[in-house]
Amino acid sequence: MVKQIHVDTPGQGLHEVTEKIHSVVQGAGLKEGLCTLFLRHTSASLVIQENADPTAKRDLERWLNRLVPEGDPFYSHDAEGPDDMPSHLKAALTATCLSIPVADGKLALGTWQGIYLWEHRRRGSRRELVVHIGA
Amino acid sequence: MVKQIHVDTPGQGLHEVTEKIHSVVQGAGLKEGLCTLFLRHTSASLVIQENADPTAKRDLERWLNRLVPEGDPFYSHDAEGPDDMPSHLKAALTATCLSIPVADGKLALGTWQGIYLWEHRRRGSRRELVVHIGA
Amino acid sequence: MVKQIHVDTPGQGLHEVTEKIHSVVQGAGLKEGLCTLFLRHTSASLVIQENADPTAKRDLERWLNRLVPEGDPFYSHDAEGPDDMPSHLKAALTATCLSIPVADGKLALGTWQGIYLWEHRRRGSRRELVVHIGA
Repeated sequence: MVKQIHVDTPGQGLHEVTEKIHSVVQGAGLKEGLCTLFLRHTSASLVIQENADPTAKRDLERWLNRLVPEGDPFYSHDAEGPDDMPSHLKAALTATCLSIPVADGKLALGTWQGIYLWEHRRRGSRRELVVHIGA
Repeated sequence: MVKQIHVDTPGQGLHEVTEKIHSVVQGAGLKEGLCTLFLRHTSASLVIQENADPTAKRDLERWLNRLVPEGDPFYSHDAEGPDDMPSHLKAALTATCLSIPVADGKLALGTWQGIYLWEHRRRGSRRELVVHIGA
Repeated sequence: MVKQIHVDTPGQGLHEVTEKIHSVVQGAGLKEGLCTLFLRHTSASLVIQENADPTAKRDLERWLNRLVPEGDPFYSHDAEGPDDMPSHLKAALTATCLSIPVADGKLALGTWQGIYLWEHRRRGSRRELVVHIGA
């Protein structure tokens, strides 16, 4: 099964999509298999991170912003603004796709794992996420 | 097929799991397909690296420790110690899941490729790895 | 279906393989499913990036070269030259495998997404890419 869903991001940062993906998996009615997420963008990415303490999420964002700062004179690609090239770099360093096994009809995530869409552009937008569920 | 296995890590670093995964693949008796590994943790990760020269493994660990050092005053998430936040950052920069084709009943790895569980916490622990094998 | 293809890289940098993969997908004749790419090397990697403006590609290469420079006195693994260890580090920070859903018989890539084989060695070589296509 292939299904495309939308995620509206309010702005830069980690936005949890675990529940949204859980719903798609439950809708598929599969007891055991593999769920693959694919993000159709190069200025946002996917990451599995701790869902318990919000400081982990915040440190993750701040650290990556420091590693890949806006306004680096090094960039020549800036047609869409100072957050343009850093977005592509952050996406390359994280993930565009994720595959998570399904067991007992549910995503086999660890207790502290959440699935996040990482928006790298300052201004959020409507992001397209393709979900594949197979045996 | 979905199967959960355990990997006991003695401490921080790259621990090879290639043989363990080979055994699961052989047990599944599939001639051709896809093997997906999913790690149920956010303070350890998966990586495919050179299995020949141990200096490659060592340089990889030391380099990432330098990029993401412990004790960075930048971190606010440190409830579990100085290796807490660096662990999450290292996991985000590497991989939580890997998919490897199976051909002739074996993982289609290159000659010099090994599969590693990268423990990012100083103190090793029992890690849960979910293996999905499908056609 | 598992198929191995070759990609001859002329040298260091991002080399687009989107059309090559499209051909394999079309040859498989599958309407809906999942296409997984696996690179059988640890000194090259895979990445999905913007295919429109070539400056994005160039900045990506230059930025990663700055993050992981050649000749860092830190490396002990240099048997194959100054680009040996940086290659492994760059591969660990990007991806060895990618999974892309197939819908309507085509890869469900976003409008601006291209699939790239990132050669990290100065001297290009013949790279082996395994493609798995399943339902």
